[in-house]
Amino acid sequence: MEKTGVAIVGMGTVGAGVARLLYDQGDRIARHAGRKLWLTHAVVRDLKKPRDIDLPADVVTDDVQKVIDDDSVKVVAQLIGGIEPARTIMLKLLEAGKDVVTANKALMAQHGPELFDRARQLGRAIAFEASVAGGIPIVANISQCLSANQIVSLQGILNGTSNYIITRMDLEGASYDEAVKEAQELGYAEADPSMDVDGTDAVQKLAILSHLAFGARPDWTKIPKRGIDQLDEADLRYARQLGFRVKLIAYSKLVGGKLQLLVGPMLIKIGTPLAEVRANYNAVSAIGDAVGPVFFHGQGAGQMPTASAVVADMIDMAVGRTKITFETLELWAEGQTRVDMGDPGDLEGKFYLRFDVKDEPNVLAQIAGVLGKHEISIASVYQHDGDATTEGIVPLVIVTHLSAEKNASSAIKELDQLDCVKKVAERLRILD
Amino acid sequence: MEKTGVAIVGMGTVGAGVARLLYDQGDRIARHAGRKLWLTHAVVRDLKKPRDIDLPADVVTDDVQKVIDDDSVKVVAQLIGGIEPARTIMLKLLEAGKDVVTANKALMAQHGPELFDRARQLGRAIAFEASVAGGIPIVANISQCLSANQIVSLQGILNGTSNYIITRMDLEGASYDEAVKEAQELGYAEADPSMDVDGTDAVQKLAILSHLAFGARPDWTKIPKRGIDQLDEADLRYARQLGFRVKLIAYSKLVGGKLQLLVGPMLIKIGTPLAEVRANYNAVSAIGDAVGPVFFHGQGAGQMPTASAVVADMIDMAVGRTKITFETLELWAEGQTRVDMGDPGDLEGKFYLRFDVKDEPNVLAQIAGVLGKHEISIASVYQHDGDATTEGIVPLVIVTHLSAEKNASSAIKELDQLDCVKKVAERLRILD
Repeated sequence: MEKTGVAIVGMGTVGAGVARLLYDQGDRIARHAGRKLWLTHAVVRDLKKPRDIDLPADVVTDDVQKVIDDDSVKVVAQLIGGIEPARTIMLKLLEAGKDVVTANKALMAQHGPELFDRARQLGRAIAFEASVAGGIPIVANISQCLSANQIVSLQGILNGTSNYIITRMDLEGASYDEAVKEAQELGYAEADPSMDVDGTDAVQKLAILSHLAFGARPDWTKIPKRGIDQLDEADLRYARQLGFRVKLIAYSKLVGGKLQLLVGPMLIKIGTPLAEVRANYNAVSAIGDAVGPVFFHGQGAGQMPTASAVVADMIDMAVGRTKITFETLELWAEGQTRVDMGDPGDLEGKFYLRFDVKDEPNVLAQIAGVLGKHEISIASVYQHDGDATTEGIVPLVIVTHLSAEKNASSAIKELDQLDCVKKVAERLRILD
Repeated sequence: MEKTGVAIVGMGTVGAGVARLLYDQGDRIARHAGRKLWLTHAVVRDLKKPRDIDLPADVVTDDVQKVIDDDSVKVVAQLIGGIEPARTIMLKLLEAGKDVVTANKALMAQHGPELFDRARQLGRAIAFEASVAGGIPIVANISQCLSANQIVSLQGILNGTSNYIITRMDLEGASYDEAVKEAQELGYAEADPSMDVDGTDAVQKLAILSHLAFGARPDWTKIPKRGIDQLDEADLRYARQLGFRVKLIAYSKLVGGKLQLLVGPMLIKIGTPLAEVRANYNAVSAIGDAVGPVFFHGQGAGQMPTASAVVADMIDMAVGRTKITFETLELWAEGQTRVDMGDPGDLEGKFYLRFDVKDEPNVLAQIAGVLGKHEISIASVYQHDGDATTEGIVPLVIVTHLSAEKNASSAIKELDQLDCVKKVAERLRILD
């Protein structure tokens, strides 16, 4: 049987999972690949650190140059996080004639165009299934399985940490701090979870998916984003009473031929697939103009789900399929975006608004008046008298009909000035 | 831009959808394929029949020989249903040097080994994404995206007609006959829907998936099957009261290294993904040993969802990806099955049992005694007094704990002999 030399650079959790699949399941991988994937080097940072997989001494090294210099290595799983030295190492690997598989979404979102163009110049390929939605093969599904379609919308729960936290808060009444602590204990959240809970991780993944699905080349730092770190538990409760769950949604949609991108907590009707995604799971709900709605659900992170995606990419790379996809799709090639970005202010939506208002007559009339002035009509109003925290101040929840983002924003600015409104406490989009 | 000549043989609903994508969305397809798919021939049965797509006169023909003789045609979407002449035409196309894309699950399930071996001898490939689950790209996901995994179980709702009928009965109280009639009016069911409602269609699709997922080579006619055509509406109601929905499930699972295959109506806990699949949708829930549980949901039939799968296959074929998959996976190659089939009698499960019993004391004790003798313990008992249809006879529903299929069968045989049991009216497996 033919052999393809492979290497792993970065032996953290995912790297160890990849090594385990290649070693413990070598026969199966060989059967599925029609050739043996032969692990030649596993590059670690610290040779002395104990690992949960035993590898032969001549495989483990702390010198990435050994991989670069070994011509028998054709495919490298490059599993270092962050931008540098990950970027420089990837360039060196490509220049040494290796095809590279990565799980690094920050690197893809930030330096995709540079890396992909360089790979193409060198006749090499980059695969990145594991960079978005972990074990869910969303990259292959969008770029290959749904290739007859124009994707018209794509919405996902792409950050497992946030979804775990919000599920614990929503379904089991945990506080935000308790839920974060649990997520850390379970290994779902890092010691500093800010990139997860502030929406950064989700927005980087959305940037990658929106390139695949729409041919967009968004600057991920410019996509409007909000995380779950400022959510009030009361809004989860009020939303539930209205028949919704709150989820951190990565949102993309073609509206009038322009692309709208957005990451933030949104209300989703209970019983619809995205609303029922629990714990650390991820999901993607997409609509193609031919296939209609499709929905994918699976583990978005974790050692073996991510390793599953990395090894599938290594197999595809070794057999030559990725090369073809890479060349035909011209991923992140130099040149124009295929779609213009819409003005975020134009994005229509229904909104959930929560106000702290004075407990006095005529409040609703004043608020409704301002909303009406901005062409926003009210679908329903809920006054939660029992929840008054400050003497004489009560929460008021309003659900609106469709209005443009900019109308909602200017209405809120004006509402904040009303004497009877102590504070516009929350505004969340309701997913259509 | 490079051009690949393609043809469609069979211009029914799906064929017209494929032609529409190739014609109306030619630029998009070219962008996704890196080449133009050039429709050279569309073979119809009757030239005079009106169609809902206008094709140039020199493209439409009723002579498949034109396709066979045209060396510029490299990829053919062969969209004729049934076994013959579909089989003979496919062999002729392969022998003429064409790669073939098909949506014909009956042909794949019945003659897969013959056709695949012949294609391999000839250096050609066959793609069949559209033959299972319509628009859900389950073939590519199992055979490529999850290739690092051993699939350990795979359960699906694969027949949209049955799911439509059962959804209407369960959620809206339609009778079986009403629901069948509606399904026919909506185009979800054929004039003779027996292949759908008796489980034949689902079992053929399960045979294909079990080959991909487990390397099995089952004779589809020997897979235990039951359809939805004999279901009693009362059982949908009782199941719902117990927190379950009834769905037609194609079931496959590795148990002790052996493969269990089964098609039949089963109870699924409300709120779990498969239970909430509505109307004519399909879904597949799989577990891989690395990726864990993954779930796919989409339209299982219909013109454009199926055309989406066919055209994706045509693109993969034209760019060369399918060829690689076809060769590396050795689909349906001559040789041994990679997994032995388990004895259906050994398959454990929890069961829903409904009895018509005499309304007299001591009935439950007698039934429980027989079940206990066969090592079946009772999880819960529900007596539906109000539902007595015949004087003195009442329905009794029992939900069991885990027991082997053969124990349940022999217990039921014995229960049927009890004087107090008028009839064992239903036995349904509860999906674990």
